Parts: sequence; structure tokens; C-alpha cells
Amino acid sequence: MLGFESDYMEGACQEILQRLMETNLHQVSGYGTDPYCESAKEKIRRECSCPDADIFFLTGGTQTNMIAIGAVLKPYEGVVAAETGHIGSHEAGAIEAGGHKVLTIPHHLGKISAAQLAEMLKTFWQDGNRSHMVFPGMVYISHPTEYGTLYTLEELENISQICRTYEIPLYLDGARLGYGLMSNQTDVSLPDIARLCDLFYIGGTKVGALCGEALVFTKKNMPAHFMTMVKQKGALLAKGRLLGVQFDTLFTDGLYYRLGRHGIEMAQALKEGLLKKGYELYLDSPTNQQFICLEDDQVERLRDKVAFSFWEKAGESHTVIRLATSWATREEEVNSLLSLF
Amino acid sequence: MLGFESDYMEGACQEILQRLMETNLHQVSGYGTDPYCESAKEKIRRECSCPDADIFFLTGGTQTNMIAIGAVLKPYEGVVAAETGHIGSHEAGAIEAGGHKVLTIPHHLGKISAAQLAEMLKTFWQDGNRSHMVFPGMVYISHPTEYGTLYTLEELENISQICRTYEIPLYLDGARLGYGLMSNQTDVSLPDIARLCDLFYIGGTKVGALCGEALVFTKKNMPAHFMTMVKQKGALLAKGRLLGVQFDTLFTDGLYYRLGRHGIEMAQALKEGLLKKGYELYLDSPTNQQFICLEDDQVERLRDKVAFSFWEKAGESHTVIRLATSWATREEEVNSLLSLF
Amino acid sequence: MLGFESDYMEGACQEILQRLMETNLHQVSGYGTDPYCESAKEKIRRECSCPDADIFFLTGGTQTNMIAIGAVLKPYEGVVAAETGHIGSHEAGAIEAGGHKVLTIPHHLGKISAAQLAEMLKTFWQDGNRSHMVFPGMVYISHPTEYGTLYTLEELENISQICRTYEIPLYLDGARLGYGLMSNQTDVSLPDIARLCDLFYIGGTKVGALCGEALVFTKKNMPAHFMTMVKQKGALLAKGRLLGVQFDTLFTDGLYYRLGRHGIEMAQALKEGLLKKGYELYLDSPTNQQFICLEDDQVERLRDKVAFSFWEKAGESHTVIRLATSWATREEEVNSLLSLF
Amino acid sequence: MLGFESDYMEGACQEILQRLMETNLHQVSGYGTDPYCESAKEKIRRECSCPDADIFFLTGGTQTNMIAIGAVLKPYEGVVAAETGHIGSHEAGAIEAGGHKVLTIPHHLGKISAAQLAEMLKTFWQDGNRSHMVFPGMVYISHPTEYGTLYTLEELENISQICRTYEIPLYLDGARLGYGLMSNQTDVSLPDIARLCDLFYIGGTKVGALCGEALVFTKKNMPAHFMTMVKQKGALLAKGRLLGVQFDTLFTDGLYYRLGRHGIEMAQALKEGLLKKGYELYLDSPTNQQFICLEDDQVERLRDKVAFSFWEKAGESHTVIRLATSWATREEEVNSLLSLF
Repeated sequence: MLGFESDYMEGACQEILQRLMETNLHQVSGYGTDPYCESAKEKIRRECSCPDADIFFLTGGTQTNMIAIGAVLKPYEGVVAAETGHIGSHEAGAIEAGGHKVLTIPHHLGKISAAQLAEMLKTFWQDGNRSHMVFPGMVYISHPTEYGTLYTLEELENISQICRTYEIPLYLDGARLGYGLMSNQTDVSLPDIARLCDLFYIGGTKVGALCGEALVFTKKNMPAHFMTMVKQKGALLAKGRLLGVQFDTLFTDGLYYRLGRHGIEMAQALKEGLLKKGYELYLDSPTNQQFICLEDDQVERLRDKVAFSFWEKAGESHTVIRLATSWATREEEVNSLLSLF
Repeated sequence: MLGFESDYMEGACQEILQRLMETNLHQVSGYGTDPYCESAKEKIRRECSCPDADIFFLTGGTQTNMIAIGAVLKPYEGVVAAETGHIGSHEAGAIEAGGHKVLTIPHHLGKISAAQLAEMLKTFWQDGNRSHMVFPGMVYISHPTEYGTLYTLEELENISQICRTYEIPLYLDGARLGYGLMSNQTDVSLPDIARLCDLFYIGGTKVGALCGEALVFTKKNMPAHFMTMVKQKGALLAKGRLLGVQFDTLFTDGLYYRLGRHGIEMAQALKEGLLKKGYELYLDSPTNQQFICLEDDQVERLRDKVAFSFWEKAGESHTVIRLATSWATREEEVNSLLSLF
Repeated sequence: MLGFESDYMEGACQEILQRLMETNLHQVSGYGTDPYCESAKEKIRRECSCPDADIFFLTGGTQTNMIAIGAVLKPYEGVVAAETGHIGSHEAGAIEAGGHKVLTIPHHLGKISAAQLAEMLKTFWQDGNRSHMVFPGMVYISHPTEYGTLYTLEELENISQICRTYEIPLYLDGARLGYGLMSNQTDVSLPDIARLCDLFYIGGTKVGALCGEALVFTKKNMPAHFMTMVKQKGALLAKGRLLGVQFDTLFTDGLYYRLGRHGIEMAQALKEGLLKKGYELYLDSPTNQQFICLEDDQVERLRDKVAFSFWEKAGESHTVIRLATSWATREEEVNSLLSLF
Repeated sequence: MLGFESDYMEGACQEILQRLMETNLHQVSGYGTDPYCESAKEKIRRECSCPDADIFFLTGGTQTNMIAIGAVLKPYEGVVAAETGHIGSHEAGAIEAGGHKVLTIPHHLGKISAAQLAEMLKTFWQDGNRSHMVFPGMVYISHPTEYGTLYTLEELENISQICRTYEIPLYLDGARLGYGLMSNQTDVSLPDIARLCDLFYIGGTKVGALCGEALVFTKKNMPAHFMTMVKQKGALLAKGRLLGVQFDTLFTDGLYYRLGRHGIEMAQALKEGLLKKGYELYLDSPTNQQFICLEDDQVERLRDKVAFSFWEKAGESHTVIRLATSWATREEEVNSLLSLF
């Protein structure tokens, strides 16, 4: 069985396991106050060219989203997101369970535009009934998006500008950021993201870690007593070292980028192979998630030999499926997969 | 520096790291649907003599408490606990953040009695104003307690009986259960707990795991769609294998018990050493947390050489400190510690 | 200044004030346990042909919606509504503040169709990722809608049928129900609503009361300890009589219907007058809210003489305004208003 | 049947009903933006000698408490209260349902002392584990208390001073404030309360109104977008005039004080009558709630002729009952009641 279902089908990259072994019996204090966390934070600050960044390690994406959004929003505020945004579709209502509405706007291949955002915010502030409405208090974008697409630097700058104008923070969900940063088709760097966003997270779970996301507040804007709020949401690991060691390793000697790059290369090989065989891609994804529209029959035949994700039905007889590569995908797996088409 | 501050100062026991390495590149499905989780659940069911148990793995104690309690209580209900219960004192208000009151009753060395509980429930149900009050909807106990003490089998049976009479579930917080089960001074087994409680958790974080707690519903009473509620609280790991592999290892060949037993033996050695030197213990703890009352001067002198926990002030000139052993404590560390007294 | 801004610009109908005076010094017990509440409930049960209905009086529409929805939904569920539904647009996020998502579907003049609903529910239940999504746990409709439109009996029956098939309750927001029931263009009666919905509310605030809505559970399905949940949300009036007396009066001698009928007649006169003068209505509303699209200039000129509601911009130079009649509108006011056109 | 069960057994004072009649058909805007609300606020500001006060009218005590506390506290904070405080005992967990813990301290006849409070706050801030605990973020006191007792001016000043020192707001629950202000045994005035508290509410429901409490922020500290938060909690009346007219009437020509004074005089007559007959009071209440401890037999005999409140059992054979007078109590009722003793 070939595994292209997701980018979290394996454990962790070898370097992380190795480092967990080496550090295992060092006695350190709990709750993220250990030296591994400190070292990891320092390295991330450097990579972001953001020496003042406040960083907090959490275990997963939904947890990070709900805690970051919940800690920043005021009770009368909601978060603006594309209707395809992960927080609004596949996080089981975590944002609402925390008391906040997700205010959706239409997407284009998973992205929103600065123009749409500006229109939405302007309309809200012109509405005479706005005191009976949920205030837009934050903008959420995914990069890469749920469709594998990426914002260009210009798009990001424009969205950031609108957020500055309306004085609401911009939050970027980087669950797959490693793949975004290392795409052939991006002009957006980590320092760009740190500069343009008020907060964002660097995904570990999908880029080589056992678990873990690094939440970065870039503008000296980590809410007061954030650790207590994390504890209150059941998200404070006693052995914070588990996250510290992992991120310290990921940001040593460019490992995070190498892992991301590998995933991208495997996705490129897959994409090119499919195109060469005459298949048409459902959309042109520059990252590690590839989408292809197949006849239902072919989808059924593949099911025995490949683990993939159902994406959506396309009319009566076709289905879009997602094939995800990752840091762990081997070249021979891509070749085996291609041989099935 | 000697480390007796807590039972979570190291990483994980060697067997767990080894198993994480061995299984690392097996491709498995996410969110706890993998074969390691299945195997771990089956082993736990067997150890509990509870073949129908529903089990869910979570990452930490506060998370487990808030999700278990929140999923079981109705909106108008609160959870009864000793005033020293972890949920009411050191979880940053996680239960209240989930909408529920912790209804406290006085403790005796961290424990509550069946008689107190019965009186409290009777008083509530006799109160003509009870529709304006929070309904007691669950009973929470810790075993071992926050003071290291243990319920006897008889005490547990009596508390369980009261809960049955009033038809409210009994929940046991087993953050340190391994040490409780292997104490020299207990007559309570894992099957006893499974029989007498409606739900409980087996602590991994403090007994040799990197992270992880196994929440056990013993009476076919796992709430419907529990996984979705876990997701909604940001507590569903994408790589559920991380927890599955760990618990599968802990419950293979009695590892969990051996780890617990080791912590107990170290605590016994410490206790006996202190008594031999003429120290009086603050309370007679049968588990891995030992408490001793010292003059403030001595506490200050120790601080340079030992990491320990402040417990509470005892009058003007004395302080109670906690010394915790664990699965990772080495005999020579206990001896070095004793030589400082 | 002519008042057509809303249907809650005056106090209460004379009969209610009179009855409040008459009963004022009778000493009764608090929190809705008084004889006026009992009598009002009995009358409502009779009008609904629903002898088993459980009824609870609350003070306002948003309060009623959030309490009803919050008490019925499970934590992992959300409520399905038209994107124009009041709960999703003009209640300041009250449903989300209670932890639940509003799952929107497109509207047609404020209404949803059974076909849309069936499609949405089918899609959800076929989605393999649904355990990561918010479950549709209730359907919310407004009748009259926010656009003044009404469901036909057939439409209601079809929606109700879908809800039965999927075993989720149907909730009808009747903030303006009196005007809906007395429209010339409706075939839906109060017993129809009680039969087809699982819960609904009869609006008092907009149909002649000082405040108050009657929440009706039609299928012996009032959640247990509902009163305690109402108290917990700060919605239990000490002097429940205030609501009991009002609804008892509204449902004595058909007063509620007479008030609704008057509002409808005034709206009809307004509508016909506008049509006669050659104006085109923005939509054909059969109830007490009338919408008209005017040039911006004309809107500005009206502003000095009439209080009305801004509805939405219509292109660069036009604006849709809402003119609401009510139980309190006088015929001469309608004539004066028409003379301004 | 004589009615001494509570101070909310009748409707409203005659002046309020009269004013509701007179203003009934004036067309005004909704949601508390009407001229009656404005006028009432201005009068309250004057009575409080607090020209900058921000005032919001709400319908009931629990609602006011939960909204005021919820809007002021940060997510990681709780509210300090006497263990007998209404918010912690008889509001069905409304504060916890809003996500916040009630941090209790022991009471003395319903009151807390500045010394207790200082000790509690000092202990918290000295606790090295406080980042795992709920932060004390507000102090709640009742005046009169649930036992009818009153703080002296000195006590209030001391408590206020502690709050200033620790920079947390002081909130006073004045559900029965009218009776407190007019007691023979008080040296605390409305301007004192406005000066010493950061927020408080003036109770209407129990002092002559149909419903309504006036929440007063005294230090330009009403949270931003408070109206939207009120709406979100379902507490914004469409016809805000209902509250405005009532408070405008209560604060015209000293009506609020006259109503309070009447309740006090009736309580004094009752108290003196009981003492004269040789009864001993359970506690010396200077306000409108009187408590007396009787043999159970006598309690049973009274039950046929008087509505009163059960307070608590006092040993095997005695019961404490509460007798409440109010603005509506007539002298002959007190005499009839006394004749039963």
C-alpha cells in the first residue's frame, strides 16, 4: 500500500528522534521553561529576523488556532477567514466553542484577496446596525492554503496593509509552512511573514515533528498571562521539552527547510509524471498537496493500492482526490504511484 | 544539582523511546485510528478486567480533566471535588472556562469521605432553592491525591456507593496512578478502580511517558461523538500514534507497574533515610511524593544543591517542601540527597 | 416625525397596561411560578392545539434564540440557518458566544428550501471527514423572515419532513409571528406550526407587549432543568408575572390576532398606496415590513419627516429602505406617510 | 395568606405604572437609546455625585452580575466573593457558565473584611505556582448582603483601598441597595459607593420596579462596545424604554429612597414587635430582611398563614426563617404577622 493520504503518516524525522534520545535524561524544569525551548525560540527569532518575537510551543494546529484566536479577540469580535479556511471547516467548531464567530468571505483556490477584505471591512464599518453584529477583530489566512496554494508577497503585503488600516491583527496559519517556504513558486520568506503578520505559526506536525507548532507573536503583542490561558485550555505540556527539543532540532542547520524542500521535490516529480502521462491537474498547486480529477472507476481501482484523500465529487462520474507528499516520501514511492496511472 | 522537584523532569523511559524509533516509519492513519492505539487499548482493557472499556488517549492531565468533565456534565451541573483537588486549584480555571463550577468540600489530607459526600448531596437535594443552584453532576477524586495519599478499597467502595445512590458518575484522576497502584500500603487494584469508577485516567506523563494520559470509560458510557469534542478542544493529535505507541509499550510486560514500583522504592528509601536521621515527615505519604517540614534556614541551604517544590509555609519560621521521586530517580541520587540532611 | 422605523417604537397595547394595573398588588410567587404564567401557558396550549406543550416565557428574541438553541444542541452540534437568519447576522454572535456554530445556507428572500436543506444534510453525512466538522443539530427558520416573507404550509411541511428524516429538531423564530399568522397571504396556522416544529417562539415584543416571547416546546421535549439553564443565562425574571400577565392578556379574546391583523392592514394600505403612486416594491412582502428602493436624494428628503430603517445600498445611486407598520400604527400616519411620496 | 416571602411579590409602585401609561404611545428609538433612558442616567449621575458615570440598564440581578463580571474580567481571571455571595450560591453557576471562577473567602454574616481580602491577595501573589491558578481579577461584595447586613463606611473604604493597592476593581451588588441606603444603621451614601467602587448596580426589581437594575461604571471604565456584549448575552431589550421610564421615575423626587425607607420602617416594626414578644433574632439585620430561629412546630403552624422563606436548619428541632418586608408591605400586614407570634 502506497501512502499519499496525508503528510502525517510517519513519526518524526531521524534527527528529532536522535536528539530526543540524547537529551532524554537531562533533568529540566517543566511547562516550557527548559533550555531546549529557550534555544529553539532564539533560533526561530533569528530565522524570522524578528529579535523581539514572543514564541510559544503548542501541540497541534487546531489547538494553536483556537488559543491564539481566543486570546487575541475581544468577546464581541470574530475572525475573518476564507470560507475554506481550516478554522471554519475542519476544526469541529473550536473557534465557536471558544465563543467567537468565524466571519467567512468567498475564496479563490483557498485564498482571499485584499480587495475582498477591504470591501468586507468597509461594509461593516458603514453599517448602522453594526453594534448588533460581530465585529471583525482579526484576519486569518492559511499559507499554504487548504488547496496547496500560496499567497504572493504582493498579495500578502496588500492584505497586511488593509489590516493595518483597520487596526486588526493578521494571523497566518502555517500548518504546512515548510512546504510553502520551499516551493519553487514563492517569493515569500519567513522574515516577510514575520514582518507582515502580527502572529503566525510554524507547523511542525506536518513537517517532520512528532507533534508541535511554534506560535510566533511578532509585534511584542503576546497577550499578558498567555501561559495561564494555555494552561486553562489544557494545552500546556508538563514536559515542554518535548516541543523544545523538536523545534530546536528543526531549526538547527536548516533542517526544517531541507524537510520542506524534500516534500516539494517529491510533489514536483509526481506532478510532472502525471502531466507527462496526459493527466490534467485539478488545480496548479505549488506545494506538497496535489489534486487530480479522475473518473470514479479509476478512483476505485487506485483505492486498493494507494492511500489517498477524497477531496470532492466533480459531477456525476468524477471525483477529485488529493495526493500528499511529505518530508518522508521516498522517490521510489512516487515512481510506484506514477506507474499506477 | 539533585532533581527532586517533580516526577516529570526527564524525557521518557528507554523502552518508549526505543519503540518510537522502531515504529517511526510505519505509515499509519491519523487521529488515533492507528494500530498502536488499538493494541494499547486492548492491553489496558485486559489490565482493567474491563473488556468493554472505551479508551481515549490525550496529552496531559488538565486537558483530560477538562474534556472528560465537560463532555459528561450537563450545562446546569458542576463537579464535586475536595478543595485541594487539582481541578479546583492548579488548572488555571479550566473547568470553569468550560462553563462548569467546581463544588468543593473540605479535604482530609487530600481525600474526601463518603460521609461528607453523602451529606453534601443530601443537603443539595433537600434545598428548596436548588433550581437556582449548580447541580452536583459528577464526583472527582485524585488517587494518589495531591498530598500523595491513597484511598483504601473500602473508602473507594463507599464513595462509589454514594455516587450510585445519587446516580452521578465517579471520576478518578490518576495522574500518578502508577505510583498509587504499586504502593506498599494499598489494597486498590486497577480492576477495582475500573469497577468502582465510571471514568478515570491512567497517567502517563508522570510515569515514564513523554506525554499522554489514557482516559477510560468503564460502563459503556463514553459520550457520543467524543472524538469530535476532543477535536473541538484542540486535543486531537494528528499523529495519534505518539500516544498509542507509548501506552502500548507501558502496558507490555508490566512496564507501567515496574516504573511505578521503582518510584515507590526510591520514595521508601528517602522516607526511611529521613526518619533514621530523626526528621519528622509532614504527613505519611505512601507514594512517590514526600513532604517534610524544615526550618527556613535549612530550606535555603538545600536550595543550592537540590531542586524541590515549595509546598506551603508552616508558621513564621518553617516551610513544608515536597520531594518527588519517579521512575527515573537513581539510588545514588537518593543517597546524595540524604547526605545533605 | 412619522415613525415607521420598527415595530417596537411604542410601549404596550392598552389591554396589557390595564391588566398590569389590575393585578399589580396581588402577591404571587416569583420566577414564573405565578398563576398568570400558568393561565397564559394554558391559553397558548389551546391556541396551538398542543395540550402537552411546555412553555417558558423569556424577555427578548436574542435571549430566546440563544437559550433555546444552547439548551437543545449538544456541544459538537451547530444550528443550520439561512445566511440572512437573525441568529447569524444581527444577534452579535450570541449563538457562538454560547459555543455553537451557525451553519449557513443561501437564502431566497430570507427563506431556505427543503431541497437545499436535504442536500446540505446529505452532503454532511456522506463526508468522510465529518468527525472533524460541526454536526448539524437543529434547523432554524424565521417566520415571517427578516425580509417579511412567509413559508407556505407545503414548504413548512417539507422542511419538517427533512428534519424528521435526519432526526434533528426544527426551530421557528416567531419574533413577528402575529403578523405572519394574520397575513392575507398565508395558509399556516398556529396549530400547523406547533405540529411541524419541535420548538418555536411566539413574539410578544413586536406584537404589542412591553417585552416578552413565549418559547413553546411541542413534543414533550423541553430539556430537563430548563429553568436552571435560564437562570444561568441571567434570563429568569424574579417577577415572572410581568411576562405571564402580558401573554395571558394577549391570548385572551384573540387580542394577539387583532393586534397582528391591525399591523397587516396598515401595511396593506401602505403597499397599495405606494403601488398606486407608481412606486415599485423591492420585494412583495405579505407582512408588516415593507421594502422600497428609492433614489438616494429622495431617501435624504424623507429622512427629515419619517423615521425608517436603512436596509441596503442598491447600486451607486439607490437605497433600499424598510418601512414597518405595527399594532400601534394609525391610519392617519399611513396617509401622512403616503403624502410624502 | 400574609406575604413575607420576598421583596418581589408585587408588581411595581404606582408611580412607575402611572408613568408607563403616560409615556406609552410616545414613539422612541430602541435598545436604550431613548430619552427616558438618557434622563434616568442623568438623574442617577447626579444622585451619585459622579458626573462621568457610564450607566447601563439591565433586567435582573443575575444578568447584571454575569454581564458586568464577564465584561471586566480577562479570561485568566476570577472574581473574589464571600462564600455566601449570591454569585457563588444562588445564580445557577452563571459566572462559571461565562468562563470564570468564583474565588471564595469565608464570610462573617455575609460580609468579608479588608484583612481577609488582603491576606488572600498577598498569598496569591506570593505563590510561585500562580501561573497555574486563577488570577483574582475583581472583588464582589453585596450591600446589603444576603444576610441583610451592611458594610460600614470604614469597612468599605478599607476594602476599596486593598483593591486599589492590588489594582483590581471593586464591584458592589446592590440588588437591595434602596433598603441599605435608608437603614437607620448605615453611614454609607450613594456618593460614597460611587466613589469607593469601580462599578456597582442599583437594584430596581426589589425596590419597586417591575424589573430592572442600573449598572453604574464610576471611573470612565465601561468596557468598549459594552452594548454589543449585552446584546450577545441576550440582555438588550428592544424596548429599552421599559427600563428607562422606571429608573427615571424612581430617581424623580426621591421616590427610590421613599420606597426603601418604607421597607425599612416595616422591618423595624416587625423586629421590634418580635423582640417585645420575647423572640430572639437570629442576627441583627439593619435592613428589610429579618431572620428568626423558631421551633420546627411553630414554623409548621406559621406556614398556613404566612408565606416566608426557609433559610436553614438550626440543629435537630429548629429552623431559621427569613421574613422580608418591602416598599409594598402594609402596616396592617406587619401587625397581622406579629399577632401570629
